[in-house]
Amino acid sequence: MELAKRRGFFWQAAPLHNPIAGFYDYAPMGSLVKRRFESLWRNYFLSLDDNFYEIEASVIMPENVFKASGHLASFVDPIAKCKKCGHAERADHLLEDVLKESFEGLAASDMIALIKKHGIKCQKCKGPLEEVGVLNMMFPLDVGTGKEAKKAYLTPETAQGAYVNFALAFDVMRRKLPLGLAIIGKAFRNEISPRQGLIRMREFTQAELQIFFDPDAITSHPKFKDIEGYQLRLLPAKSRDSGKVAVLPAGQAKELGLPEFYLYHMAMVQKFYLEVLRLPEQRFRFRELVGEEKAFYNKYHWDIEANLDTLGGWKEIAGLHYRTDHDLQGHGQVSGQKVAVNIEGKEFVPHVLEISMGVDRNVYGLLDLAYSEEPERVVLKFPRAVAPFDAGIFPLVRKDGLDAKARVIFDVLKQHGFRVFYDESGSIGRRYRRIDEIGVPAGITVDYDSMQQEDVTLRDRDSMQQVRIKIEQLPAKLRAFLQGAAMEASGK
Amino acid sequence: MELAKRRGFFWQAAPLHNPIAGFYDYAPMGSLVKRRFESLWRNYFLSLDDNFYEIEASVIMPENVFKASGHLASFVDPIAKCKKCGHAERADHLLEDVLKESFEGLAASDMIALIKKHGIKCQKCKGPLEEVGVLNMMFPLDVGTGKEAKKAYLTPETAQGAYVNFALAFDVMRRKLPLGLAIIGKAFRNEISPRQGLIRMREFTQAELQIFFDPDAITSHPKFKDIEGYQLRLLPAKSRDSGKVAVLPAGQAKELGLPEFYLYHMAMVQKFYLEVLRLPEQRFRFRELVGEEKAFYNKYHWDIEANLDTLGGWKEIAGLHYRTDHDLQGHGQVSGQKVAVNIEGKEFVPHVLEISMGVDRNVYGLLDLAYSEEPERVVLKFPRAVAPFDAGIFPLVRKDGLDAKARVIFDVLKQHGFRVFYDESGSIGRRYRRIDEIGVPAGITVDYDSMQQEDVTLRDRDSMQQVRIKIEQLPAKLRAFLQGAAMEASGK
Repeated sequence: MELAKRRGFFWQAAPLHNPIAGFYDYAPMGSLVKRRFESLWRNYFLSLDDNFYEIEASVIMPENVFKASGHLASFVDPIAKCKKCGHAERADHLLEDVLKESFEGLAASDMIALIKKHGIKCQKCKGPLEEVGVLNMMFPLDVGTGKEAKKAYLTPETAQGAYVNFALAFDVMRRKLPLGLAIIGKAFRNEISPRQGLIRMREFTQAELQIFFDPDAITSHPKFKDIEGYQLRLLPAKSRDSGKVAVLPAGQAKELGLPEFYLYHMAMVQKFYLEVLRLPEQRFRFRELVGEEKAFYNKYHWDIEANLDTLGGWKEIAGLHYRTDHDLQGHGQVSGQKVAVNIEGKEFVPHVLEISMGVDRNVYGLLDLAYSEEPERVVLKFPRAVAPFDAGIFPLVRKDGLDAKARVIFDVLKQHGFRVFYDESGSIGRRYRRIDEIGVPAGITVDYDSMQQEDVTLRDRDSMQQVRIKIEQLPAKLRAFLQGAAMEASGK
Repeated sequence: MELAKRRGFFWQAAPLHNPIAGFYDYAPMGSLVKRRFESLWRNYFLSLDDNFYEIEASVIMPENVFKASGHLASFVDPIAKCKKCGHAERADHLLEDVLKESFEGLAASDMIALIKKHGIKCQKCKGPLEEVGVLNMMFPLDVGTGKEAKKAYLTPETAQGAYVNFALAFDVMRRKLPLGLAIIGKAFRNEISPRQGLIRMREFTQAELQIFFDPDAITSHPKFKDIEGYQLRLLPAKSRDSGKVAVLPAGQAKELGLPEFYLYHMAMVQKFYLEVLRLPEQRFRFRELVGEEKAFYNKYHWDIEANLDTLGGWKEIAGLHYRTDHDLQGHGQVSGQKVAVNIEGKEFVPHVLEISMGVDRNVYGLLDLAYSEEPERVVLKFPRAVAPFDAGIFPLVRKDGLDAKARVIFDVLKQHGFRVFYDESGSIGRRYRRIDEIGVPAGITVDYDSMQQEDVTLRDRDSMQQVRIKIEQLPAKLRAFLQGAAMEASGK
């Protein structure tokens, strides 16, 4: 977190004023990494099918949307309020802190019984906690004024934006299934005790893909053959106690009761993490949720988890949820509109498979996994695809034409589509430390030899080794280096 | 608007339920165009200087932010409320509707006098309108619960996100000016009578760049020489009655009292519109605001306007605002934090030049300008850079290997970085109509001859002419076509 602030990744929002907990702003480097993630996500998941599209929905939505989704009635946290000082705390978190056990999903009456039994007091003033109430976690708003004001809410998940747009989008995109509607956007939850930085925020970014499909087609996927042998990393509920990840080919994972359509998307999600974001595979797993852990409408629900050192172990960073027709049915009932589709004479309400990612959690996870302390430096070993820049261009000194030459190289690399930046201030050692700490894979330096030999040094962030490369070969060599080739000097 | 809905650009938000006025959702085609605009904006404006960066700020901000900015006290609309039915209306809009004159900025007391004088009644029930009050246009929120809840607001402009992050960003980005902080993000205003579709919304997207600079440096810009002769299209306040745009080289425009630093950015904004977005120049102008029309803290304020047929003439789509040190001073006073910078021993509060664009307005403007009705078709003649796709790939029929061949071409073009889509359903004529109506510049068709000759037809959206091109030459020919070259058959 110290590095994240010092090097301009993120920090508490509105830092000039008294910030409110649970809000973070992205500084220049963090904003670059976040946009990289979003762009990789978009390219990857929208390419899964010709009929997958991105849309953008308003974050303020009318009350009926959340009547339909169930959020108005059920999106509540159990709250223990102090009679004396008024301090409110999440009852399950409080119990967890004191009794060192998880109490998520427990009924309010059981929580108050536990609080009484163990004589738990207000953590602020030691006053009495006598009731556990519920608080809806949505932010309400009045749109308009006076008698004509309309009740609305900030959406607590981007998913609803896809559901309320499904019928029209299905119509204009020519009535084919599966239809995918992706939204990368903000969501808002009035968390009572936000914690753990980017992991539990009150305003956050989600990247979610809702895949609408014919439920009769769940047992197959046209591309299942391609991933049948792909090794999934799974922690089924039954082997949770052992904590041991089972590595199973997708074809064999059917034994866990999962249909092909679900397994295909499991494989594609895992490939995104291992092949695009390049998570080390032992840091990645799917974890099955069952019973009261999962939302009641999810038929299959596996969390995607990453093992993050700074957070003490496995953390949920995404989820794959088979939501059935729960959402569309709800919206149909509340709106009185037709949500069934008719495809070649067959009428049915489509089912939904949701791929849901918390963008901030993922950005934090990438930072955690990249962070390395070495004896003489701190370095962020970002995979090249998510680094804030491809390369920094440095003149050794700011005179004798070295700066002008470095500028030209900067312009040329930029025209070639590289994400580069130019920096001429401070000693070259400090500039290298800086790109190490922001995780830029390559440093390109123009020195006095460059003026005679028309070459530069290319420095590898990870090995700190340098090779000399002819300027005319630089775009090609840099491209190869970024694509994972070892560094290679000119002429080799 | 009918086309925008039918072809999947945008529509009223939450279309399944009773939508609330002033909210729009972007459907698949509109989302593509919006992202194109944002990406062009980002590439262009962040390239103006090495020290310009994008950041991302929370949209929920603590109350003090808006005490500091002045929004809490002054961001109000005059409201006339009906005594009988409670209907509320913006008083200035009501006067404008009835008296066919503009009354923006008039004091509330003068408005009520006019309402009485002209005997204006409630537009809904003909009841009496006796008072004009004010309504703050921000959406308030409570964050947290009970006694511990904190007052916050949805930000009415992205600009504040840059101001509250300036001090920290300046520090971590190594204390250089000018420093640019760009935000592409949502802003929210509780408009009483939102109208004109995407032009006045309650939730909208802004792309804003705040340039922090030394006020002593306002009389010069290191690159002014480059644009000295560039012809600016200006409507100064003094010649507003004539409506005649003055076309003046930037160097000469100094006569209007504008300093070089401001003029340089005027030129760069105009170039963005004319050279990147390719607006016809007679559709573009800067319009000077003076006196009460502009915010009191803006020293220079020129709107950027486009002449849009569907809205009956010139409409504001952006603004260039010299906000002085108004914002930073306000944040410094309310927070008690230091906002002055110290550069080489000189201490001062930076001034701000703001380039502000309404993304939705610009997307709407691009649609308006692209819309053409021809005798036998409707076509969106989008400039190639903002079209939702570069090309559609069509097999003439879905059999005899034509579809497989078209698929291969689709994959190859995608690998070459083209934004393409594949469509095999419906007659080829209908598929051409469809890409005409969504504004895709090129249609590529695989027919029976293609199977022998290894070529395809490339159809130009605007001229509807077709030429045959060898498949192996397609990437190069398509690239040239998209960059503005005339269509050229193979071998020519």
